[in-house]
Amino acid sequence: MAQKFGVIGLAVMGENLALNVESKGFPVAVYNRSPEKTDNFVKRAQTEFNLEVAKDSDADPNKPVFAAYSLESFVQALERPRRILVMVKAGRAVDAVIEQLKPLLEKGDMIIDGGNSLYTDTQRRTEELEPTGLGFIGMGVSGGEEGALLGPSLMPGGTEAAYREIEAIVTKIAAQVDDGPCVTYIGPGGAGHFVKMVHNGIEYGDMQIIAEAYDLMKSVLGLNHEELYEVFNEWYDTPELDSYLVEITKDIFTNMDEKTGKPLVELIVDAAGQKGTGLWTATNALEMGIAIPTIGAAVDARIMSSLKDQRVAASKELSGPAFTFTGDKKAMIDKIRDAMYCSKICSYAQGMDLISKGNQELFDGKINLGETARIWKGGCIIRARFLNKIKHAYDENGQLANLLLAPEFKQTILDRQAAWREVIVLAAQAGIPVPAFSASLDYFDSYRRDRLPQNLTQAQRDYFGAHTFERVDEPRGNFVHHEWTAAPSKAAV
Amino acid sequence: MAQKFGVIGLAVMGENLALNVESKGFPVAVYNRSPEKTDNFVKRAQTEFNLEVAKDSDADPNKPVFAAYSLESFVQALERPRRILVMVKAGRAVDAVIEQLKPLLEKGDMIIDGGNSLYTDTQRRTEELEPTGLGFIGMGVSGGEEGALLGPSLMPGGTEAAYREIEAIVTKIAAQVDDGPCVTYIGPGGAGHFVKMVHNGIEYGDMQIIAEAYDLMKSVLGLNHEELYEVFNEWYDTPELDSYLVEITKDIFTNMDEKTGKPLVELIVDAAGQKGTGLWTATNALEMGIAIPTIGAAVDARIMSSLKDQRVAASKELSGPAFTFTGDKKAMIDKIRDAMYCSKICSYAQGMDLISKGNQELFDGKINLGETARIWKGGCIIRARFLNKIKHAYDENGQLANLLLAPEFKQTILDRQAAWREVIVLAAQAGIPVPAFSASLDYFDSYRRDRLPQNLTQAQRDYFGAHTFERVDEPRGNFVHHEWTAAPSKAAV
Repeated sequence: MAQKFGVIGLAVMGENLALNVESKGFPVAVYNRSPEKTDNFVKRAQTEFNLEVAKDSDADPNKPVFAAYSLESFVQALERPRRILVMVKAGRAVDAVIEQLKPLLEKGDMIIDGGNSLYTDTQRRTEELEPTGLGFIGMGVSGGEEGALLGPSLMPGGTEAAYREIEAIVTKIAAQVDDGPCVTYIGPGGAGHFVKMVHNGIEYGDMQIIAEAYDLMKSVLGLNHEELYEVFNEWYDTPELDSYLVEITKDIFTNMDEKTGKPLVELIVDAAGQKGTGLWTATNALEMGIAIPTIGAAVDARIMSSLKDQRVAASKELSGPAFTFTGDKKAMIDKIRDAMYCSKICSYAQGMDLISKGNQELFDGKINLGETARIWKGGCIIRARFLNKIKHAYDENGQLANLLLAPEFKQTILDRQAAWREVIVLAAQAGIPVPAFSASLDYFDSYRRDRLPQNLTQAQRDYFGAHTFERVDEPRGNFVHHEWTAAPSKAAV
Repeated sequence: MAQKFGVIGLAVMGENLALNVESKGFPVAVYNRSPEKTDNFVKRAQTEFNLEVAKDSDADPNKPVFAAYSLESFVQALERPRRILVMVKAGRAVDAVIEQLKPLLEKGDMIIDGGNSLYTDTQRRTEELEPTGLGFIGMGVSGGEEGALLGPSLMPGGTEAAYREIEAIVTKIAAQVDDGPCVTYIGPGGAGHFVKMVHNGIEYGDMQIIAEAYDLMKSVLGLNHEELYEVFNEWYDTPELDSYLVEITKDIFTNMDEKTGKPLVELIVDAAGQKGTGLWTATNALEMGIAIPTIGAAVDARIMSSLKDQRVAASKELSGPAFTFTGDKKAMIDKIRDAMYCSKICSYAQGMDLISKGNQELFDGKINLGETARIWKGGCIIRARFLNKIKHAYDENGQLANLLLAPEFKQTILDRQAAWREVIVLAAQAGIPVPAFSASLDYFDSYRRDRLPQNLTQAQRDYFGAHTFERVDEPRGNFVHHEWTAAPSKAAV
C-alpha cells in the first residue's frame, strides 16, 4: 500500500484538503468516524472529481483515494513514515483521535492537527506526544472551504524535523504567490496555532475597520449601495487596500435581495456572531501584557452588536447629536480611506507585536515575522497586497520594535494623520461609533509620546497602596515611596 | 479560651485587620508562619496600641490579643465555631494554609480567605471544602492598609449561613457610612471575590479617566500644578466627582519635591505598574461576552505606559499635529469635567453589566447590585458620593438593563454629550491619547444605536465562511445562507 497522506475527519475542510492533496499527485487515505460521511466523500470524489476510489474490502487498494472504514485499515494503507492530518472539531475530539491513533502508529509517524486548536492545547499535546516518538504538528489552516480545496495559507508548528517530513506535500497544496507557497515552518510546539490565532484577531480588526468606514459613508455621507460599491471598488484598486476583504465587500453591495429588490446587506440583522478566535487573541494579549486595542475594539464591537434588543430600546431613550454633513463628500471619502489605512497599520502593528512577544516567550525566537506576513499573502481571509510591505519591513530589520517605525509605514501615517484625525472628529460630532478607528489613533498617539500621564497613576498607587514609583532623575528600577501629605484645607491655600 | 476571631498571616493587611477586630471588642488570636512577624506584631500591639498580649506559653491566655506560635495553639485559642481569616498571598499559599488547617478544625468552623484571590480559585475551594463540613468565605477586602485598620469595604461570598456567623464582627470592622456598614452578603461561592475583581477593574477605569483629564489640562491647556490642584479641588466639591481618587489627586499636586522644589508628580516616571486585577476583569469580561471597553482601555493604557524606552525612541520619529489651543480655557476645563463624568458613568455601566452577567451565570442571582454600590461608598479606593445614584438606580429598578438608561444618569449624559464630544475632538486635534474617554463615547454611541454596521460583518462572514445570517424581515434565530455572487467586472457596472 502506498497512500502518501491520510486525512481523518471528513467535514468540508477535511474533504477539501484531501482532494487538494490528491490533486497534487499524492494518493490519499481518508477516514471518518461515521461511515456515512466517508460514503459521501467517495461519491463526491468519483462524480465531481472523477477519481478512482478503493475501499477496505477491495482487492486492489492502490487507487488515488483509499476510503477506510476502520482506523486500522486507514493506518495500514499509509506509507511510512505515516503523515496523518486530523481535521476534527477543536478540543476533546482531537485528544480522542490521538489516543485512538497512538497504539496503531509506529515511531516516526506524524500526526498533524489542522483544526482551529487553542495553541496552549497544542503545546500540551506536543509535550504529551514527545516521549512516544511520534511526530506532532499543530497547523493553522486559513482560507475556508475554497482555500482548503484550491490552496490555503498553512501555519505549521512543531519540530523542524517533523516539518521536513511534510514539507514536500504542504508546499504543493498551499496557495502559491509570487514569492512562493503560502506555508513555512513557523516554530516549535504551538507556534503554528498561535500565529493562526493572531491571524484571526487581525481578521477581526480588518472587518471592523471596514464596517466603520461603511457606517460613516452610509450614515453620515448618505452613500447608497451603488456608490458604496464604487468606493470599495476604487479602494480595491489601490496598493494599500487591495485585499480579499475589500474585494468581497464591494461584491456584497452588488447582491440584491430577490424578494424585495433591495440591497441584501441592508436586510441583514446587525448582530455579529463570533466563534471565539478573536476573543482568544484579546485574552492572550492581556495575559502576555501586549496592548492590541484595535483588535480588542473589534471583539467588543461584535459584543455590542449582539445586544440588538437592548440597543433598539436604548435608541428611543438616548438621542445623539443633531448633525448634518455639509463638507466636501468626495474629499471626506478620501479621508475615510486614509483613516482606514492608518487604523489597519496600527492593527497589524499590534498583531505583529503580539506574535513577537509570543516568539520571545514561548517559541525560542524561531518565528520569522517577515515570513509570517508572506504566507498570509494568499489563501487566507486577510490576504492583501499590503502584506508585501510588512514582509519587506521585517526583512530589512528583523529587530523592528514596532511596524509604526518601519520606513514602509512611518511616512504614510505621518502624511495621513491629519485626515485620520478629521474622521475621528466627524464621527464624534455625528455620533457614529468608530471604536477601531479611535483605538488605533489612541494607540498611535500613545506610542509616539515620550511622556504619558501615568506618572499621576503611579503617584496615586503610591498614595493609597504604597506601591512605590521611579523618579525621572534616578536610574530605572530604583523604586521609592513618598509619604504623601494631604493638602492644607482649602481656606489655607 | 475565648478568642472570638483568628487571623493567619501578619503582613500589613492581616495585622491591621486583626487590630481593627480587636478594637471593636473582639479578642483576637494571630498566627504567622515565620515567628519574627508575630514578634513584630506583638511589639506593635503593645507599644502603638497599648494592648495586653498573651503568648502560647503564658499562664493566663485570656488577653485581647493571643499570639500563637503554632497553628495548633492558634486553633485551640479560638472560641467555637472558629472564625479564621486567612490573609496570605493569593494562590498556592491559600491552598497550603487550608490544607494545614483542615485536620485541626471541626465541623462548623469557618475559614475566611480575605486575600486578593481569583474568584475561580474561590469557587474551586468552596467545592473542595463543601464535603468537609467546614464553612468557607471568600471575602474581597478593599481600602489598603488604612482601610484595613480603620474600616475597609468588605465583599464576603459563600453560604449565607456562614455569613451569618461572621456578620456581627464584619459589620463592626467595616467602614461605616450614612446607610450602614460597608459590608453585605454578596452571594454564593466566589461571588465576593468576583465583585472585588470588578471593583478593581472600575478602579483602573477611574484612574485612567483622571489621568486623561490631567493630561489634557496640562499638555493642551497648559495648567501648572497649582492650577491643577485648584481644578481638582473644585471638582472634589461637586456631588458627581466627590470621590477618594479625586481627593488624593488634588493632594498629589500639593506635594513638592524637597530636592528640586518641583511638583513631585512631575518627577515620577510615567510607566504604570499593575498587579493583575484590572487584567483579570478584562479577561473575564471577554470570556463572559460583556464589553467593558473603558476598563479595557485603562488596562491597555498602563501597558502602553510601560513601554517607556520604545516611546521615547518613537517620539523622535513620529511627530504629532501642530496644535495650539486658542479657545476659552475655563469653558474647556468644564467640558473636560463633563467628559470625565460621562466616561465614568460608562465605565460603571460596564462594570455593573459584568457583575450582572456573573450574577446570572454563576451566582444564582443572589447579588444585589444596589447593595454592591452601597458598600463601595466607604473604605475602598473607588468610594464616591456618586455611588448613591447607582444604588438608587438599582433600588428603583432591579431589572435595569444598563446604567445609561437609569433616570439618574440618562439626562445627565444627554445634557453633557456635546461637551464630551468637544473634548474628544480637542484630543484628536491636539494628538493627546484619550483611550478611556474615546472608548466610553464609542460605547455610548454603540449602545444607543438601533442599527450598527455589523450587518456588513455578517454578510462578509457568510460570504467567506458560510456562517449564515438573520434577516430583518424574518424572526430572529432564523439563520440563512446566501450564495454571494461576485460583482460583474468593472466595465460592466
